[in-house]
Amino acid sequence: MSVVVRNIPRAERRLIDGLAESGVATVHEAQGRTGLLASYMRPIYAGARIAGSAVTVSIPPGDNWMIHVAVEQCQEGDILVVSPTSACDTGYFGELLACSLMARGVRGLIIEAGVRDVRDLTALGFPVWSRYVSAQGTVKETLGSVNVPIVCAGASIEPGDVIIADDDGVCVVPRVKAATVLEQSSAREKKEAAVRARLKAGELGLDIYGMRQRLAEKGLKYVDSSC
Amino acid sequence: MSVVVRNIPRAERRLIDGLAESGVATVHEAQGRTGLLASYMRPIYAGARIAGSAVTVSIPPGDNWMIHVAVEQCQEGDILVVSPTSACDTGYFGELLACSLMARGVRGLIIEAGVRDVRDLTALGFPVWSRYVSAQGTVKETLGSVNVPIVCAGASIEPGDVIIADDDGVCVVPRVKAATVLEQSSAREKKEAAVRARLKAGELGLDIYGMRQRLAEKGLKYVDSSC
Amino acid sequence: MSVVVRNIPRAERRLIDGLAESGVATVHEAQGRTGLLASYMRPIYAGARIAGSAVTVSIPPGDNWMIHVAVEQCQEGDILVVSPTSACDTGYFGELLACSLMARGVRGLIIEAGVRDVRDLTALGFPVWSRYVSAQGTVKETLGSVNVPIVCAGASIEPGDVIIADDDGVCVVPRVKAATVLEQSSAREKKEAAVRARLKAGELGLDIYGMRQRLAEKGLKYVDSSC
Amino acid sequence: MSVVVRNIPRAERRLIDGLAESGVATVHEAQGRTGLLASYMRPIYAGARIAGSAVTVSIPPGDNWMIHVAVEQCQEGDILVVSPTSACDTGYFGELLACSLMARGVRGLIIEAGVRDVRDLTALGFPVWSRYVSAQGTVKETLGSVNVPIVCAGASIEPGDVIIADDDGVCVVPRVKAATVLEQSSAREKKEAAVRARLKAGELGLDIYGMRQRLAEKGLKYVDSSC
Amino acid sequence: MSVVVRNIPRAERRLIDGLAESGVATVHEAQGRTGLLASYMRPIYAGARIAGSAVTVSIPPGDNWMIHVAVEQCQEGDILVVSPTSACDTGYFGELLACSLMARGVRGLIIEAGVRDVRDLTALGFPVWSRYVSAQGTVKETLGSVNVPIVCAGASIEPGDVIIADDDGVCVVPRVKAATVLEQSSAREKKEAAVRARLKAGELGLDIYGMRQRLAEKGLKYVDSSC
Amino acid sequence: MSVVVRNIPRAERRLIDGLAESGVATVHEAQGRTGLLASYMRPIYAGARIAGSAVTVSIPPGDNWMIHVAVEQCQEGDILVVSPTSACDTGYFGELLACSLMARGVRGLIIEAGVRDVRDLTALGFPVWSRYVSAQGTVKETLGSVNVPIVCAGASIEPGDVIIADDDGVCVVPRVKAATVLEQSSAREKKEAAVRARLKAGELGLDIYGMRQRLAEKGLKYVDSSC
Repeated sequence: MSVVVRNIPRAERRLIDGLAESGVATVHEAQGRTGLLASYMRPIYAGARIAGSAVTVSIPPGDNWMIHVAVEQCQEGDILVVSPTSACDTGYFGELLACSLMARGVRGLIIEAGVRDVRDLTALGFPVWSRYVSAQGTVKETLGSVNVPIVCAGASIEPGDVIIADDDGVCVVPRVKAATVLEQSSAREKKEAAVRARLKAGELGLDIYGMRQRLAEKGLKYVDSSC
Repeated sequence: MSVVVRNIPRAERRLIDGLAESGVATVHEAQGRTGLLASYMRPIYAGARIAGSAVTVSIPPGDNWMIHVAVEQCQEGDILVVSPTSACDTGYFGELLACSLMARGVRGLIIEAGVRDVRDLTALGFPVWSRYVSAQGTVKETLGSVNVPIVCAGASIEPGDVIIADDDGVCVVPRVKAATVLEQSSAREKKEAAVRARLKAGELGLDIYGMRQRLAEKGLKYVDSSC
Repeated sequence: MSVVVRNIPRAERRLIDGLAESGVATVHEAQGRTGLLASYMRPIYAGARIAGSAVTVSIPPGDNWMIHVAVEQCQEGDILVVSPTSACDTGYFGELLACSLMARGVRGLIIEAGVRDVRDLTALGFPVWSRYVSAQGTVKETLGSVNVPIVCAGASIEPGDVIIADDDGVCVVPRVKAATVLEQSSAREKKEAAVRARLKAGELGLDIYGMRQRLAEKGLKYVDSSC
Repeated sequence: MSVVVRNIPRAERRLIDGLAESGVATVHEAQGRTGLLASYMRPIYAGARIAGSAVTVSIPPGDNWMIHVAVEQCQEGDILVVSPTSACDTGYFGELLACSLMARGVRGLIIEAGVRDVRDLTALGFPVWSRYVSAQGTVKETLGSVNVPIVCAGASIEPGDVIIADDDGVCVVPRVKAATVLEQSSAREKKEAAVRARLKAGELGLDIYGMRQRLAEKGLKYVDSSC
Repeated sequence: MSVVVRNIPRAERRLIDGLAESGVATVHEAQGRTGLLASYMRPIYAGARIAGSAVTVSIPPGDNWMIHVAVEQCQEGDILVVSPTSACDTGYFGELLACSLMARGVRGLIIEAGVRDVRDLTALGFPVWSRYVSAQGTVKETLGSVNVPIVCAGASIEPGDVIIADDDGVCVVPRVKAATVLEQSSAREKKEAAVRARLKAGELGLDIYGMRQRLAEKGLKYVDSSC
Repeated sequence: MSVVVRNIPRAERRLIDGLAESGVATVHEAQGRTGLLASYMRPIYAGARIAGSAVTVSIPPGDNWMIHVAVEQCQEGDILVVSPTSACDTGYFGELLACSLMARGVRGLIIEAGVRDVRDLTALGFPVWSRYVSAQGTVKETLGSVNVPIVCAGASIEPGDVIIADDDGVCVVPRVKAATVLEQSSAREKKEAAVRARLKAGELGLDIYGMRQRLAEKGLKYVDSSC
């Protein structure tokens, strides 16, 4: 039942790096408003924006043994994605594991549980998106699995999927859709750049997007304040 | 049922700016410990302190159409205040809408829901107090209302009321009470300045406020540790 | 029933300062994974790391009178630890009380409730770990107790116990165990330093900790991806 | 600042009783999906369905003095609606107060806080919708107000408004709209009765409501499973 | 992007009915402690225990249009499983939709959102497991999908998977594993029956499961109370 | 570090049974509003009211091994009180363990975590107060301790303390105070009986408790509605 899957397929590096530049909100919109992890997944420090290939870990509550196992499966450009089999706020991950992952070129950690050594992780510049911050230690007694499909913070994630994370949260793009989603993200950004310039110049979205007629048809009324 | 109220009355600019200087905790105390929004309303970045006239938006869950409508009703010195008709963590607002509001001189956003593009909003210096951060997109299908009385995060807000927001949270001052509350806030600050000096010099609040007798009457006992 | 206990015993200053250097995660592990306060206790600003002797306050909901009483019992190197008798998010503590505590050399505040004047406290460099940030004011009507045993955020705390707090949260060390726990913390740090160097050099925890055989015995299987 | 307003206007009894029969979901829909209190307001026992005139109480956290004051303002057919000025789970209300309210013909209690003596209240048949159940006692030290406008669980309530409560939660109907809303509720019920019969007979909502064309226009595709 | 998948494969009825008899806790253990939905999914009334084939619905926040579409895809023995694309407590489902589903032989509803008409649903005997109870109405404006893979309350669910639900919560069994899991559940029940008899007779689990030696090896000490 | 303490002292049975009759709210008031567990501790079924001697269990997250150990330390009239060392919603306890405890005369379970087999426990009449209901299974790998002081749901509990639990929640009475608290509870009940009769007869608490003068002194004003 407990298995470590080796040599998972990954998306091309240039696709991954392109998605990192677009950021979570754009990518999420570009792939049809899907793939977002729950809003309780928060960065331990502001300003990081990363993308990478998911190395997934399914793990028991309060037991971080499989994270040690997962490190070996990580390579340059990966992001570790950890989900406990039942809700737990324990601090599964700290500075020593970060040193180990950084030595392998891993870009960050996504964990639907707790993380600790936040001050050290911040100093190291190793970004983490977690549900909790907690110093509570874990045991190393029970197996889990590495690189199997998991659900993390409400999103279904396959090993090798592309993870994008920034101050808005975390989004997953299925590996085989990475190229298409990147294309759509770029198109979206181009379109937004044009709109942005007009909005900054004081034009209204109501006019740019041509919303007035449909609002009227739906029955929206304008009245003056009687106060 | 869906209505946009134009030309709402607003408080005088000098009252608004005075209240911003006092800050949330002082204003809230000065008006008799009323008007505070729930403590889950948090700033997306630390350090901002603003006040402005409320342009209110009542909006369906997962639908930000009425925010586009509301932009047109905003003017220099306003704060947009958005409340969904039922609890929702969706990201109703992002950087493009902020550009549009900034072009009109709007000072910030209060939203009992989600916000996205947090990194860009921080870079722009457009402050937001929200319940959630979420990249989840919204639709534009259902009407709501602009500049009607709303309840936002447990506080009743009329269009044109004065909103004060800082790292402590968000407070609303009814428009017609703005002058009185500013006066009371200033008086309170003056009094606190005097107390602050004495406390810094090592005097005790117990003595400054003359609390010892009442504590004794209530039955407070002092004993020495037996450890 | 309401009592203020004076002249509580405290741990030696050098033990306290040593524990501050070790930090919450290390101290918590070193004393057998006990003493951690709940993960909802968060610092109002990042980067502070303190330790001190607990002056404890048991306090009614929405009433901060006893904090004023407690100030007098504080001395250089103390940390004030406040727990309401029932859950409440009110802002019991602000900048004036911080000025008073700083005048006495108090190092910080731990409160399982709300705090306000966060901007001022940050500017003053007075660190607070709280459950909420809220400007909501309190009354001064009902007695509580100072320097009695309390439960704060799920941890049992005696007056004079050593409190350690940093970005990971808050931990309590029983006063009489301070020396032993400091020793174990230092031993742990030394051991971690050696492991850290090896991990940074790319060695795996699997090998450093000799985990491979036990994983195999438990039945962990390695397979190659079939994708 | 603290005031008790006497002799508030109330809606006609037959309107109130009519709204009770319609129940929360129907009334809420009939008045345009407004007026619902937050979904965390739950009944202490299943099966009760009441309506009555709101006697409102604004009350400090952990202090139930004003409930005693409010009892005197209650009359046959009223519902007491209590909202603390800041979030608190204390048990403000128990069996003795229920006896007192029942002696005056009060129909139930709505409280955005805690309630206790749940077993006795159930035996008495006195229904309560609350946010919490808690035995934690309160003090009687600080004033509040009776029959002023309040926000309770996110809904704005005026004294004399009609409250409807059942297993779905709690809804408020502004007093002056009671007649119109009752009419619309009855119309809605009649329409639903016709639809119900057809649905029970196996007809589909898709056909009864004529949804198929609009779904197709929006682009909905039907495909057969390839599994 | 929005699609309705027809004619999904389903597990054999006798397997489904067998799993219902085993109940959630047993089935969840029998398939290796996987498949459980989050513990916030609660039944609207106690005592129901059902199993059925999942008809899945992915749905926007605050919009129940696709539930009407899904009804047509349901048949005798199915369970409707609904998950919104972002967190929302709106009441998507009520008594009329239940009548429609019951006319088709559907056994119940699992919804990670709100449900209303709880009193009527209880009277009808139509069981629902939901995250919220709320009367808040929804719109019918935006498409979603029926019978696509979804994540509901943290569990990954394919259309046609077997859903088991009782007072302990909700569990999903992949369709192709239904036979194996039923077998393991039955084996587990048989084993438990033997243990139950011994426990009722006063034998200890410590002896029945032979735990004493391993506890001693791990270092468990027994001492007598010194109080 | 892991220890099982045998032969703990217990309160006299007649004191325990007397406290059960008084119930949680009365006992909690009678001992000065202390000892209540957090309001999220809820009974799995309504109507039970028990008291007993605490057999305490400190237990790792997701691991129920020590409950098996604790059973042996239980005797007629005990209540098992279980607290995990970090927050966890796993289902540590089910019907088989209940059979074992019932064979020893144990009266119920208090657990700040999850419980399962709720339907069976209800049928057996074995009452449980828990934070969660969850079928998620646990492992048996890591030691904890039995009959050591614990914090459960925010309350400090010593082995042998008296636990009282009913529909209002759970309260702990220190063993050595049981006689005094029972006395005070009885006195309180007698006083309440007299008040109850007067309230039922329509007298007001305002008059019975003589509150009017103090309310006036505090500044309460009565005005007539101007609506």
